[in-house]
Amino acid sequence: MSEILKGACVIGQSGGPTSVINASAYGVIRTALDNPNITKVYGAAHGIRGVLDDNLLDMGQEDANELKLLLNTPSSALGSCRYKLKDSDVDDTDYKRILEIFKKYDVRYFFYNGGNDSMDTCNKVSAYLQQVGYPCRVMGVPKTIDNDLWGTDHCPGYASAAKYIATSCMEIYLDSRVYDTGMICVLEIMGRHAGWLTAASAIATEYGMGPDLVYLPERDFDVEQFVKDAKAIYEKNGKCLVAVSEGIHDSTGKLIAEYGSENVATDAFGHKQLGGLAATLANILKQATGAKVRGIEFSLLQRCAAHCASQVDIEESFMSGKVAVEMAVSGVSDKMVGFERATDENGKYLCKIKLMDLKEVANAEKKVPLEWINEAGNHINREFIDYALPLIQGKHEMEYIDGVPRFAKLKKIRATV
Amino acid sequence: MSEILKGACVIGQSGGPTSVINASAYGVIRTALDNPNITKVYGAAHGIRGVLDDNLLDMGQEDANELKLLLNTPSSALGSCRYKLKDSDVDDTDYKRILEIFKKYDVRYFFYNGGNDSMDTCNKVSAYLQQVGYPCRVMGVPKTIDNDLWGTDHCPGYASAAKYIATSCMEIYLDSRVYDTGMICVLEIMGRHAGWLTAASAIATEYGMGPDLVYLPERDFDVEQFVKDAKAIYEKNGKCLVAVSEGIHDSTGKLIAEYGSENVATDAFGHKQLGGLAATLANILKQATGAKVRGIEFSLLQRCAAHCASQVDIEESFMSGKVAVEMAVSGVSDKMVGFERATDENGKYLCKIKLMDLKEVANAEKKVPLEWINEAGNHINREFIDYALPLIQGKHEMEYIDGVPRFAKLKKIRATV
Repeated sequence: MSEILKGACVIGQSGGPTSVINASAYGVIRTALDNPNITKVYGAAHGIRGVLDDNLLDMGQEDANELKLLLNTPSSALGSCRYKLKDSDVDDTDYKRILEIFKKYDVRYFFYNGGNDSMDTCNKVSAYLQQVGYPCRVMGVPKTIDNDLWGTDHCPGYASAAKYIATSCMEIYLDSRVYDTGMICVLEIMGRHAGWLTAASAIATEYGMGPDLVYLPERDFDVEQFVKDAKAIYEKNGKCLVAVSEGIHDSTGKLIAEYGSENVATDAFGHKQLGGLAATLANILKQATGAKVRGIEFSLLQRCAAHCASQVDIEESFMSGKVAVEMAVSGVSDKMVGFERATDENGKYLCKIKLMDLKEVANAEKKVPLEWINEAGNHINREFIDYALPLIQGKHEMEYIDGVPRFAKLKKIRATV
Repeated sequence: MSEILKGACVIGQSGGPTSVINASAYGVIRTALDNPNITKVYGAAHGIRGVLDDNLLDMGQEDANELKLLLNTPSSALGSCRYKLKDSDVDDTDYKRILEIFKKYDVRYFFYNGGNDSMDTCNKVSAYLQQVGYPCRVMGVPKTIDNDLWGTDHCPGYASAAKYIATSCMEIYLDSRVYDTGMICVLEIMGRHAGWLTAASAIATEYGMGPDLVYLPERDFDVEQFVKDAKAIYEKNGKCLVAVSEGIHDSTGKLIAEYGSENVATDAFGHKQLGGLAATLANILKQATGAKVRGIEFSLLQRCAAHCASQVDIEESFMSGKVAVEMAVSGVSDKMVGFERATDENGKYLCKIKLMDLKEVANAEKKVPLEWINEAGNHINREFIDYALPLIQGKHEMEYIDGVPRFAKLKKIRATV
């Protein structure tokens, strides 16, 4: 039994949002508010920046029903950031400031809700606090639509995006086939290095209404072969539906998105800001076939479509936040809450909790196994479908008002000491 | 009491599909299959083209449960076309062929499910059949996401697209505000001449999560004023969300979409195929503000997102098909089924049927009343919200299988005599 640690907690959200990241935040906030060892629950406005800026929000002053609406409110309700901490041995200014704020509010628990980069932040903060002997338990709560966190079976946020993508692919498939004239449609799906989201389009194909061709960044993309494949399908069926990851690249590593425009900006982590790939490929196919073409980018829609969220994802997201608090209070620190797949006695999918070392997760990436991609590199094998289906089950009965979703509106009252 | 007319019926779908056009088709097919005066129910493959090509599908051979799934299956299940009939006094080849096929299958009822252009087709076919003395009752069943059919309060298909747009705008609003850095987002919504769909984005604003600026094609678009307005909002809030109709144009009538690219193709009706407007405006704002910008085109998603359809819309769509059959059997012809808005004794919205002359509807367009647009021409007034809200109510409980929608799969058995 660990020592009892009493004090306040901070929950921060970081990186790109998802449809269900707030369900995880709610798991943390609700569980922390109900825990006698946690004296105050603070939300950091815009992730670690909220700590640095002394901008903490007092979650205890929020209405309980409004907080519960976080279960189906997309985007990061507390605000997010893409702030990268320097290594503390290079520059410890930020770390000193974090310590100062943590001391000011007597913060003894820090929960950080994000992807690889956020786990890196978590890990660095924890290492510094240990180094200076400040007792504080640090837990990572995963989220990423990209599903690329290392060591966990899957990530909260992925399944809802996958469900939206599969559903939308089926709907677009039907729509793009209405005329008796030729039509080619290219769908651009998020995913720089990992093709998990684009692979979800193959679920639509499994149900007879999905893309003919699916390309992930795990395999090199050959434009000539692509044109050949698409042309053959178009000439046979008069239609061709293609799904591509934004991060597909040729064998030299050059992004296909850059074939269209050479000037691509980069974000604070050095990630390239992609876009326009669907249009680029649609134009290539138009020239090759003379067909009517359409490029569609799912853009932000795929990561914020809470109205199409997976119930399994919402429940698991909530659970990951809840478990993070329970574990921390019981003495655990420096772990990320991961998932392990299991089955019950009837062979039904079960999601088990697995604690993982933050330093193992930070900055590592999990890609789609190459053997889940077909030999030609232009579609997905059944193994992926079996992996993905249990995750996208169920539809959350969200609250509606006047025909539109009733999303949470927090008061966001700034904390004082 | 009209003369009893016994014979087969043809139902065709034409023009761009909607999320609920199949609910109307189901209204026709189910009601016709159950009516003793209708001997056979044929679906025309790809609208009037299916008649010209002698490609009729025997709806009587479809499974009843599969037909019922049409209630929530997007796109035109029978296939659509954009075929424009010549005037019969110019060239009556097509009309002679239609008469030949109608005689071959003893077709005495013709239901055509489409927008303005389709009502024009309906009207021409009916006029010809009357001229040659072939008894056949012709009814138009409206559909259009554009909501621009003349004389009816609203059109089946509009409300579901509006609900999807309002919902997605709220979700994107939340997503686009997560970072504490500047962000401008431009949403491109369908609508060449009428701004009904774009106006739906203002429902999101009404609930505190919608665009700051909304531009419809009913008003001239002034790029300079737009940049000024967007810049002012961005400088105040650090964010700016803009919704624009694809058809916005300057005071000379030039499409703003053409500011980006001068080469725009046209379809068979002479409509320009637009696109890229969101990117064009996003780039203009990027240059003016230096902000991070994003252009998002709802593209096909807005007209096929059956998973977000309005229950009111589904019920009214079904009803319009059902009434068309009932009216035709009772002796009515040359009418389109329109809607009239009424209220019950408690002031609750009611939708009443109103029959309209086909020739009145054909090729006329209904636009958003100018007084529903604010004075500055950059947002929507409350009158529109009051108009739109009753239409987007309710969520259809669609069938799911393995976490994805279960859409209808018709056997499409070709009819023989």
